[in-house]
Amino acid sequence: MKYSYLFYRTILILLSGIFSFASNGQDRRGDQPPNLVIIFADDLGYGDLGVYGHPTIRTPSLDQMAQEGMRFTQFYVAASVCTPSRAALMTGRYPVRTGLVEGILPGRVLFPSDRVGLPREEVTIAEVLKQRDYATMAIGKWHLGHLPEYLPTSQGFDGYFGLPYSNDMDYITARDGKPGYWNVPLIRDTLIIERPAEQTTLTKRYTEEAIRFIRENTGRPFFLYLAHTMPHVPLFASTGFAGTSTRGLYGDVVEEIDWSVGEVLKALRETGIAENTLVIFTSDNGPWLVQGINGGSAGLLREGKGTTWEGGMREPMIAWWPGTIPSGVTSHEIISSLDLLPTAAALAGVSPPDRELDGFNILPLLKGEAQSPRDFFVFYRGDRVYAARLGPWKAHFITQTAYPDGLPVPHDPPVLYQLDQDPSERFDIASKHPEIIEEIKTHLAEHYAYVGHKRTPSIEKRNK
Amino acid sequence: MKYSYLFYRTILILLSGIFSFASNGQDRRGDQPPNLVIIFADDLGYGDLGVYGHPTIRTPSLDQMAQEGMRFTQFYVAASVCTPSRAALMTGRYPVRTGLVEGILPGRVLFPSDRVGLPREEVTIAEVLKQRDYATMAIGKWHLGHLPEYLPTSQGFDGYFGLPYSNDMDYITARDGKPGYWNVPLIRDTLIIERPAEQTTLTKRYTEEAIRFIRENTGRPFFLYLAHTMPHVPLFASTGFAGTSTRGLYGDVVEEIDWSVGEVLKALRETGIAENTLVIFTSDNGPWLVQGINGGSAGLLREGKGTTWEGGMREPMIAWWPGTIPSGVTSHEIISSLDLLPTAAALAGVSPPDRELDGFNILPLLKGEAQSPRDFFVFYRGDRVYAARLGPWKAHFITQTAYPDGLPVPHDPPVLYQLDQDPSERFDIASKHPEIIEEIKTHLAEHYAYVGHKRTPSIEKRNK
Repeated sequence: MKYSYLFYRTILILLSGIFSFASNGQDRRGDQPPNLVIIFADDLGYGDLGVYGHPTIRTPSLDQMAQEGMRFTQFYVAASVCTPSRAALMTGRYPVRTGLVEGILPGRVLFPSDRVGLPREEVTIAEVLKQRDYATMAIGKWHLGHLPEYLPTSQGFDGYFGLPYSNDMDYITARDGKPGYWNVPLIRDTLIIERPAEQTTLTKRYTEEAIRFIRENTGRPFFLYLAHTMPHVPLFASTGFAGTSTRGLYGDVVEEIDWSVGEVLKALRETGIAENTLVIFTSDNGPWLVQGINGGSAGLLREGKGTTWEGGMREPMIAWWPGTIPSGVTSHEIISSLDLLPTAAALAGVSPPDRELDGFNILPLLKGEAQSPRDFFVFYRGDRVYAARLGPWKAHFITQTAYPDGLPVPHDPPVLYQLDQDPSERFDIASKHPEIIEEIKTHLAEHYAYVGHKRTPSIEKRNK
Repeated sequence: MKYSYLFYRTILILLSGIFSFASNGQDRRGDQPPNLVIIFADDLGYGDLGVYGHPTIRTPSLDQMAQEGMRFTQFYVAASVCTPSRAALMTGRYPVRTGLVEGILPGRVLFPSDRVGLPREEVTIAEVLKQRDYATMAIGKWHLGHLPEYLPTSQGFDGYFGLPYSNDMDYITARDGKPGYWNVPLIRDTLIIERPAEQTTLTKRYTEEAIRFIRENTGRPFFLYLAHTMPHVPLFASTGFAGTSTRGLYGDVVEEIDWSVGEVLKALRETGIAENTLVIFTSDNGPWLVQGINGGSAGLLREGKGTTWEGGMREPMIAWWPGTIPSGVTSHEIISSLDLLPTAAALAGVSPPDRELDGFNILPLLKGEAQSPRDFFVFYRGDRVYAARLGPWKAHFITQTAYPDGLPVPHDPPVLYQLDQDPSERFDIASKHPEIIEEIKTHLAEHYAYVGHKRTPSIEKRNK
């Protein structure tokens, strides 16, 4: 931590290029670069999987995936709500860069009434991989714009099958004695093929689409983005899962996603391409706690969705690639969804897009050959920095409970936690470590300079 | 739940006898009954192991033990503090039966000034196994009476090596410029061999004693009770562990216990007796939360040590017996430390002691041949019933935070949680389920009749 952030980062990017070149050679099977599958759950909490300690939800497939691969305990998404988190994953850039952060309310997501989406000029993982002619498919929740020009097929994906936004949007209220219902459309490519989407079979149908795509593309490299609509509330599970979990409906839904993961891995094995496929499982943000029993659990982490506490932005993450990723490893390295695009580029042996990125290639880490290049992470809510982590230290400049319950509370000095020792963010040790706070502020200043978008950790303007 | 508790229990005891007879035949290796090793941590929380979801504490040996054995997510100790919890494990009886529950303060533990201990007429696991001539050894913290007539060698153990009570007792305060220190004695059999005990090497020395005992007794059945002094505060770790965990000193200490577990299992393997040995790992009660960073974590469970919330009495539990216990299984069955004595009796093929027991033989469950015989559990604090669990339902008649912070708060109707769905005890659903509360009360009435000690769930007397 003696060098400046920019200097450090530059070195890392150079190293990352070398690693990506070196590792690319190893990864090829003949000339075919490895496939990439990203399975993305919605509102799944840090504590909701068996392998992350949940006492009653049964997730044998994910537990086994972790046993055969690498499990991360300090993986961060770049926002605590759907739209900006997904934009960050897809672009490797903080939401303040892509603009998908600010509407009427700070930190809000896209709604059906919005006419905007992820800007076309942003480069997605699918577009990066198109440089090597990957077959690309998006299945499930998109939530980066529902108009045709913003749908996956305009962002580098050959095809799309799923809901364009959250499954609780477009609610038709009860009237004339008829019950209310969610009028969410199911889209194939750019056409609505079902409305309201029958949600009880959605996880099952997403899975079938995923397996079909895998089976049809065994002869070429592919990228599958499988973004489940669940376990976002309202919860739906198919026959065979509904009513089977002792955790109740939330458990049914998570267990069906677990089943889906098992089916995908099975298809990769059966088609003989498992050893040429990197599979990542994670979720977009923490549990939606205000939903009570229908929301998930962040385990020992504080708070959930919508907040910059750990429970809002630290997620389960399992990486699987038989023969390449060491099996049964738990990694405590700090990584982020922002790292997936640079990693995808390294995987395919292509250049990342020519623009500022906020992620690193973590392929060497996944292979057990290096530590994470990341020791700094910034926690945004909307376009404001609420907190920043440097190594084990996290400083909260503003805290706030989940929307709409709380108002932002500024802290000067910031609240400081040592997360490795205090993962539940219970013991403020700011008064003991002013030098750490200064170091974090220095890194933050460099971050602002790099991002080119400075909203100070202050809420004066908003409070006026 | 149609039958009465006593009826149900009678049937189960009969069945349990049949299973124990049947399974005994299978377990023997020639004529030698299986060995039993119980590894007992002190104040380890539900969330403190890697395999139970802790993000930074590294427990590769326990993780692997779980991978090779059976991990339980609903295992209860019978009290939330040391002495009564240990008495219950050792006797299979609720503390109200053995009397180790009430002193000046409710729920207190034994102190060096106490002249009492576990009554001699109580029958311990060691005494049960002596019927089959087991070699028996207690290593570590005893805390069931420190006078010679109450030490392990008076309770069925051939030998003893350890601290007779908690490592924070017997504190000599600083004076004349000399620092204060814990003046805890280290005892072999009934003699003090070191005072103050050098605590930094305690876990290491316990481990060496354990391995020596194992290696010396490969030719006969044995029972090893290895009750670690740690991670009870004050925390001590040996060279090689101190300063190595990112979780800090608490992590160092837990990681050294994990190492110790690995050494014990390795010794069992190397001596060729692993396949004839049942090993149980658990802890006496939940994390000591008031110790702040030096206390553990109950993960997603509420509260910790000293309380009848789940965090106080639900513990990690891993059972390992290569070739007999199925590997890699997570069980959500409800079991308790009260079940270990009846299970030990079944293991050795001997009769349990002729007195009322509160535990069940869970050997068939451990072998994957049956469900738990237990669907009811009573949560005592001192000699009072604070809560009771029936199936997934837990009713709190009295709640109280950890001593000495809170006062008991009675609830009528009780607070009701559905634990399988709500493990964090957040959502009181008593008003929706008066019939469940009635059923729990019926079971409790039968429990009082069986225990012969009725303190109603009321605190009138104490509040006067």
